[in-house]
Amino acid sequence: MTQTLTTTKSHATLQLPISIQDVFAAKHTLKPYARQTPLLQTMFMTAQTGGQVYLKLENTQLTGSFKFRGAFNKIAQLTEEEKARGVIACSAGNHAQGVALTSRLLGIRSIIVMPKGAPQAKVDATRGYGAEVMLEGAQFDDSKAFCEQYAKEHNITYIPPYDDVEVMAGQGTIALEIIEALEDVDVILVPVGGGGLISGVAVAAKTINPEIKIIGVQAENCHGMTASYRAGKKMRHDEAPTIADGCHVAYPGDLTFDVVSALVDDMILVSESEIELAMKDLIQRTKIIAEGAGALASAAILSGKADAYVTGKKAVAIVSGGNVDLGRVEDVVEHFIHRRQL
Amino acid sequence: MTQTLTTTKSHATLQLPISIQDVFAAKHTLKPYARQTPLLQTMFMTAQTGGQVYLKLENTQLTGSFKFRGAFNKIAQLTEEEKARGVIACSAGNHAQGVALTSRLLGIRSIIVMPKGAPQAKVDATRGYGAEVMLEGAQFDDSKAFCEQYAKEHNITYIPPYDDVEVMAGQGTIALEIIEALEDVDVILVPVGGGGLISGVAVAAKTINPEIKIIGVQAENCHGMTASYRAGKKMRHDEAPTIADGCHVAYPGDLTFDVVSALVDDMILVSESEIELAMKDLIQRTKIIAEGAGALASAAILSGKADAYVTGKKAVAIVSGGNVDLGRVEDVVEHFIHRRQL
Repeated sequence: MTQTLTTTKSHATLQLPISIQDVFAAKHTLKPYARQTPLLQTMFMTAQTGGQVYLKLENTQLTGSFKFRGAFNKIAQLTEEEKARGVIACSAGNHAQGVALTSRLLGIRSIIVMPKGAPQAKVDATRGYGAEVMLEGAQFDDSKAFCEQYAKEHNITYIPPYDDVEVMAGQGTIALEIIEALEDVDVILVPVGGGGLISGVAVAAKTINPEIKIIGVQAENCHGMTASYRAGKKMRHDEAPTIADGCHVAYPGDLTFDVVSALVDDMILVSESEIELAMKDLIQRTKIIAEGAGALASAAILSGKADAYVTGKKAVAIVSGGNVDLGRVEDVVEHFIHRRQL
Repeated sequence: MTQTLTTTKSHATLQLPISIQDVFAAKHTLKPYARQTPLLQTMFMTAQTGGQVYLKLENTQLTGSFKFRGAFNKIAQLTEEEKARGVIACSAGNHAQGVALTSRLLGIRSIIVMPKGAPQAKVDATRGYGAEVMLEGAQFDDSKAFCEQYAKEHNITYIPPYDDVEVMAGQGTIALEIIEALEDVDVILVPVGGGGLISGVAVAAKTINPEIKIIGVQAENCHGMTASYRAGKKMRHDEAPTIADGCHVAYPGDLTFDVVSALVDDMILVSESEIELAMKDLIQRTKIIAEGAGALASAAILSGKADAYVTGKKAVAIVSGGNVDLGRVEDVVEHFIHRRQL
């Protein structure tokens, strides 16, 4: 559904691919299945920033990430005939688990395509949710091409990870929950990869209250959306691997780029060490596990880079997911223990 | 306030040192200050046990542990004159932080006595909450004797860690929150050290619904309350150190022993490796950090030792705290990574 929305940013009337009606519809679709995740005030971030900082704990969502919301909202709206034929997706991460669990809950066949080198743990976890896993392609782009081709040939529905109205609308339900819990929220900080999460959140939040600032956060190492946002046109950026691997997307989606360009107030970049410090602080001070991508918004706050938006304000950082290998947890913790001992 | 309570356990009418009125009074006292912590269903424990298992996340309480509730409820009820003179407590752990933060919030002077060997991190954390720290005594019992003597000599109020009506009542507010969120809860599993938490929880839960089972969990290595519960009289048990150091209490309190004897349905013991496995599973599957004591109830469930109470039931495991050194987190995680690689 398209929506005409007046924003504080441009003071213009915009045509957007999704509307708050889509997000409210998603809310009803998700209600019996998805979790309403906790919103937790953090005293240490509050003390550090002079703002009131809250964390939206999507790491406690089913499958350990917000991706379940979008995948569920997309798949639940297929026709009975489409459902009978099954779904296919390409992902070695949180989207895979979102599609796989949704399919199990709805009794649908699901196929997840991963690159050939995908870690066995990811394969096992996805099979554990009941999906068939196909290892195809050396790189992600090859897997994706295979996936789309396979979907066409076998007439099954391809479930995109972010550049889709229903997927964005599902993610946007997070904003409704934030505003229900914290009516006078001033700013929401959002981890950004392909842009599905921030698009849904921005449309929902800005429609309810155009004064709410929406700030995206990406890793310096890979920030296609930020480069595009700054250039005013879609750009590729992929310099290096990042610990925020769930947000490693070099090139933004078409729909998500349009929404982000129109509604997002700023994009902030954080370094690898800022992300690692945030992961450590979340463990040590907030008692939660965030994956790298899940810690992006917290990293923007803890680094001081978001001070202009957070100080003196009510701010929410979305902790988008918590699916991180134990070895990575060990590395992050070990790093800081040893640094402290120096 | 004493209470007459009919239990399913003894079918007798009991005189208990605390009543549900004390717990409701504590709820009102705590309301503007303490957090109402999340209750989170865990899919993996649910799948493993065939019960519906929820975690009450007191690791996200202020100070990272339930102890804030009891300390606040105790100190808030002092007279203005007593408040002006200040408070003193003996603890190198969560009780220290509960007393220190409460005192800061209420503008009261607080002194925390710790044994001379207390880790600098604990000293710093407690000072960070605004308390004066005194290092006295070689062992905990020496520190405690000093503390009580100092309180008497200087006419300041000693804040006991568990064996106190207001402290127990504060902890009992957790049961009210559980029952508000999950009306038809069947069983609550509770980590036990001195017994303050389980006493408050048992009185509140059993008064509202005598059918709710209350199960205590202790470490095999140190289980004074379990030994006492089984013997029907107060007994000492302290065989070895435990990773559940927050529950390392060799000898139960007088009041808490009376309540536990009267109301608790069973006590379960778990091994060190069962506690470590639970800590690891909570990190990996539930994305939360529990300290050893905080993982006791989850360990009872994950080990299968609580199956008789959990299978087919709605069960809540209280995650009582999350204050664990990063080094300990590293050890637990490392242990399982290496075991998996063997």
